[in-house]
Amino acid sequence: MIRFTNDYSEGCHPSILEALAATNTEGNPGYSMDPHSAHAHELIRAAIGRPDADVHLLVGGTQTNATAIAAFLRPYEAVIAAVSGHICVHETGAIEATGHKCIACPAENGKLTPAAVRAACAAHTDEHMVRPRMIYVSQTTEIGTLYTLAELEALRAVCDELGLYFYLDGARLSSGLAAGGPSLTDLGRLCDAFYIGGTKNGALFGEALVILNPALKPDFRYNIKQRGGMLAKGWLLGVQFEQLFQGNRYVELAAHANALALKLKEGIAALGYTFLCDSVTNQQFPILPDGVVAALGQDFGFEFNCKPDAAHTCIRLVTSWATPEENVDAFLKALAALTK
Amino acid sequence: MIRFTNDYSEGCHPSILEALAATNTEGNPGYSMDPHSAHAHELIRAAIGRPDADVHLLVGGTQTNATAIAAFLRPYEAVIAAVSGHICVHETGAIEATGHKCIACPAENGKLTPAAVRAACAAHTDEHMVRPRMIYVSQTTEIGTLYTLAELEALRAVCDELGLYFYLDGARLSSGLAAGGPSLTDLGRLCDAFYIGGTKNGALFGEALVILNPALKPDFRYNIKQRGGMLAKGWLLGVQFEQLFQGNRYVELAAHANALALKLKEGIAALGYTFLCDSVTNQQFPILPDGVVAALGQDFGFEFNCKPDAAHTCIRLVTSWATPEENVDAFLKALAALTK
Amino acid sequence: MIRFTNDYSEGCHPSILEALAATNTEGNPGYSMDPHSAHAHELIRAAIGRPDADVHLLVGGTQTNATAIAAFLRPYEAVIAAVSGHICVHETGAIEATGHKCIACPAENGKLTPAAVRAACAAHTDEHMVRPRMIYVSQTTEIGTLYTLAELEALRAVCDELGLYFYLDGARLSSGLAAGGPSLTDLGRLCDAFYIGGTKNGALFGEALVILNPALKPDFRYNIKQRGGMLAKGWLLGVQFEQLFQGNRYVELAAHANALALKLKEGIAALGYTFLCDSVTNQQFPILPDGVVAALGQDFGFEFNCKPDAAHTCIRLVTSWATPEENVDAFLKALAALTK
Amino acid sequence: MIRFTNDYSEGCHPSILEALAATNTEGNPGYSMDPHSAHAHELIRAAIGRPDADVHLLVGGTQTNATAIAAFLRPYEAVIAAVSGHICVHETGAIEATGHKCIACPAENGKLTPAAVRAACAAHTDEHMVRPRMIYVSQTTEIGTLYTLAELEALRAVCDELGLYFYLDGARLSSGLAAGGPSLTDLGRLCDAFYIGGTKNGALFGEALVILNPALKPDFRYNIKQRGGMLAKGWLLGVQFEQLFQGNRYVELAAHANALALKLKEGIAALGYTFLCDSVTNQQFPILPDGVVAALGQDFGFEFNCKPDAAHTCIRLVTSWATPEENVDAFLKALAALTK
Repeated sequence: MIRFTNDYSEGCHPSILEALAATNTEGNPGYSMDPHSAHAHELIRAAIGRPDADVHLLVGGTQTNATAIAAFLRPYEAVIAAVSGHICVHETGAIEATGHKCIACPAENGKLTPAAVRAACAAHTDEHMVRPRMIYVSQTTEIGTLYTLAELEALRAVCDELGLYFYLDGARLSSGLAAGGPSLTDLGRLCDAFYIGGTKNGALFGEALVILNPALKPDFRYNIKQRGGMLAKGWLLGVQFEQLFQGNRYVELAAHANALALKLKEGIAALGYTFLCDSVTNQQFPILPDGVVAALGQDFGFEFNCKPDAAHTCIRLVTSWATPEENVDAFLKALAALTK
Repeated sequence: MIRFTNDYSEGCHPSILEALAATNTEGNPGYSMDPHSAHAHELIRAAIGRPDADVHLLVGGTQTNATAIAAFLRPYEAVIAAVSGHICVHETGAIEATGHKCIACPAENGKLTPAAVRAACAAHTDEHMVRPRMIYVSQTTEIGTLYTLAELEALRAVCDELGLYFYLDGARLSSGLAAGGPSLTDLGRLCDAFYIGGTKNGALFGEALVILNPALKPDFRYNIKQRGGMLAKGWLLGVQFEQLFQGNRYVELAAHANALALKLKEGIAALGYTFLCDSVTNQQFPILPDGVVAALGQDFGFEFNCKPDAAHTCIRLVTSWATPEENVDAFLKALAALTK
Repeated sequence: MIRFTNDYSEGCHPSILEALAATNTEGNPGYSMDPHSAHAHELIRAAIGRPDADVHLLVGGTQTNATAIAAFLRPYEAVIAAVSGHICVHETGAIEATGHKCIACPAENGKLTPAAVRAACAAHTDEHMVRPRMIYVSQTTEIGTLYTLAELEALRAVCDELGLYFYLDGARLSSGLAAGGPSLTDLGRLCDAFYIGGTKNGALFGEALVILNPALKPDFRYNIKQRGGMLAKGWLLGVQFEQLFQGNRYVELAAHANALALKLKEGIAALGYTFLCDSVTNQQFPILPDGVVAALGQDFGFEFNCKPDAAHTCIRLVTSWATPEENVDAFLKALAALTK
Repeated sequence: MIRFTNDYSEGCHPSILEALAATNTEGNPGYSMDPHSAHAHELIRAAIGRPDADVHLLVGGTQTNATAIAAFLRPYEAVIAAVSGHICVHETGAIEATGHKCIACPAENGKLTPAAVRAACAAHTDEHMVRPRMIYVSQTTEIGTLYTLAELEALRAVCDELGLYFYLDGARLSSGLAAGGPSLTDLGRLCDAFYIGGTKNGALFGEALVILNPALKPDFRYNIKQRGGMLAKGWLLGVQFEQLFQGNRYVELAAHANALALKLKEGIAALGYTFLCDSVTNQQFPILPDGVVAALGQDFGFEFNCKPDAAHTCIRLVTSWATPEENVDAFLKALAALTK
């Protein structure tokens, strides 16, 4: 079975395993108060170009989103997201469990638009409704699309206009960076807070939350602890991000994933198939005849996305830093054989 | 600096690093649906002697406590714990953040007693007060003491009498097992749920929650996900517990820690010092003159516990599976020199 | 200013004022443990034809909804409602504040449909998403429409099929009863729980929550107290519902409101105007030219509903048990004058 | 049966019934946006001497406490209260249900002391524990004792020193005012927020929350609505407080209750009995032989407080604005007869 199921099926980049072994018996203070974490924070601040940023390393994405959103909002405040947004669908109500409503908006190509944000705010007029106070976007989106710099700038402008925080979920930010999307420096300038995903780009686990708005910084570690996210051996996160931000590795790992995804895309398109959307990142959503999908399922792992019509199925193919090129070749060969 | 600060200052047992390397590129399903996790569950069920137990591997202790307690209780139900219990003091209100009151009871030697449980229940008489519904104990306790089998059986009896769940926090359960405390089979018989700590006994991270009461089992994975505790690469937990439950390793690692703690205890006692309590596990709480504590602090790491009188300080010394015996020797030598 | 703004602009039916005066110095036990409340419960159980029902009298609707939903659901469970449902829009996230997601579905004429319920359940497939566990409907709906008996039975069937609780918000149930909608006996047979609104039909305040499903009954008073809904002088609620359920008064009060609303409807239609929807209850939503709306606003109070096009405005007109017929006449006369 | 059970067994002062009847058909805007509420706010601001205060009228005490505390604190912040405090014992975990820990401190005569506050803060040192951020006191206390002005000033000073909000629960504030305790002006100067109880002093229901600290004022109505406390017919609260703050009525009603309580106290003391504490307010806690208590229970209603020894019982006797003096005489006569 060759897996294109997701980008978290393998462990970590070899450099991280080596670093974990090398530091295993160092003896480090607990709870992220160690020098590796401090160094990782420095590397991230430098990459963002914001020496004033607060950086917190957490274990997973849902944990990071729920901790941050619950920390940033007052009880009656709500977060605006695309209806397909991860917090709206795939976090088992983690945000609501902290007391906050997610306002789901129509999405275009998986993206939240200034018009949708404005409409959501206009519909919430007084104290009988929640108060929209934050927008949530994912880069890349759930369907692999990419916000352009102009799009993020337009969202920033609408946030400024309407008094909203701008929060970006970067679980797959690496793929967006490698695809030529807005840079870490852009995000450091535009967001109130965002996170840089490690789990899906070479780490065993780990997401780096970056808080830029000074109003959102105080006491954040209390929130991490209260929400169960403070890792006892916090230096494990520091060691991993030290490796990911060694040179340009963070982007290079994602560039490998993207290149293979584009090879898949081009090969599938060359066979005459279409896609759910035009993705330039490591998730591709081809639309294939049901019989082809069933046959492919014998040898390849992938997720079902949707049924665009009675005879076709849209599947999700995901590549990662660890995907071998021969897996892509094998898939395209198999698809070509089924297409003949 | 020689650290007796805690038992989570080092990474993991070498066998775990090796196993992580060996499995790094296997390709495993996410979210703990992998064969390593399934195998770890089997090993744990076998060790407990309860083939019917549900096992869930989570990353950390606060996360495990909050997820389990919030899942098991209805909104108005409360958990009874010793006033010194971890959930009452050191989890930043994580239990309250899920909506539940912790009823703090007086402790004897760090332990909850049937009499205290009965008193707490007697004081909560009607719907104007929370309903006590669970007891929480830690084995070993926050001050290193050990519940005997008779004590746990007495707590079980009071739970049966009063309709309470019995939950045991086993962050340092290994130390209790190695010290001859109640066995995993005993816990499998007596508790409604408990967790087996990995973080403080050889794992990079990881706690194995065991649910025995069938009423508490349904849908537990929803709770894990909602509380941010579902690790994407869940097999990392499985791989670690496979190693910890290889043969008798889980107890052997703790036996090393205990042996060194007892060497510390005997050496300190031989110099004429007393202790906060009689601990037979990996945490020792000697009472030393303030000047001695200050001098030791130059070369050794440890935590402050309390000031029993104006001239003395009680400190906490913790050993782990990774503590070298020469560290203990060095401490005793230094203390002897300061004692002359 | 003649108000058609809402149905809670006046105090209470004179019989209630008299009863409050008559019982003022009786001396009654607190917290709804009094004979008036017990008697009101009996009257309601009789009206529903369910002697086994639990009845709880609460002060307001948002309080009742939030208390009931939080009591009935486990933390990861969600409630399905029409996108226009009161809990989705006008309760400031009260349901989310107790930790539960409201799944908003497309509505037809303000109503939730079995197809929408099925689609919502089908879209929530595993533990990475909330678990739908309850449907919420309002009788009458936010736009004055009425579920027929066949529609409620179809919703009951889909609840049985999918394992969902059926909860009905009866803030304006009286208007539905008076309009010939499903009877209290029908609701007693079809719902797991519902509430009978007093505030909008002759009481100073008060909603009677009826719990029919035995699984939802235990310990409900704990939930009322915890959510701040337990009135010290609970007999005030009992006294009011004793009056409302005196003979057929509960329906008669609403019949007055409905009759005047229909007079408005017919008069407005006779002038050539259309409506947002076909309402047979005490809320009417005529669509009028903007200039007419502005002119009417000088003398009459009403709420803005929506802008169906650039030149027209849909307004909400609400009648109540206390609306004088001359107010309706005055409105129709003014509208006729503006229409000429 | 003559009731000394509590001070909420009767309806309301006759002037309030009259005002409710007089305003019944006025037609008022909903949700406390009416002129009666505005007028009541003005009367209260004047009585406090703080024209800048925000006043919100809510239905009940638990609702007011939970809404205010949840609004004022960030998620990881906690409130300090006497172990006997209402929020610690008699609100079914309403504060915890909003996510906040109540830190219970030893009380002296039912009162929180600066020393206890300091100790609680000193014990909470870092982000592994909740952050104390507010103190909660009740005037009068649960056992009828009264904070002096000096005591409240000392608590204010410790709040200033430690960065804490000062919140006062005034469910029985009227009794404290009538007993010569600190004035409304004092409270307006010393507290960040407090509430003035109506339910236990002549109203059908109603508590007036006064917010003085500007940082705590914004958006409070959102919190009221979200917690289910926004009364549709909010003017009912306004009308009641207009009557309570007519002239000196608010204090006069309580003076009647206090006078009768003191008559009870003196009469009981004259018979040779002692008291749990020295109360000068409307709650008295005599200690009587068990047999006497049982005999009194045939004709008089009162609550059990505690068992100071095997042969005696402490009971609670409560008087109210509505207690007839003959009830007190009857009690003393009966007790005298039983004392022979």
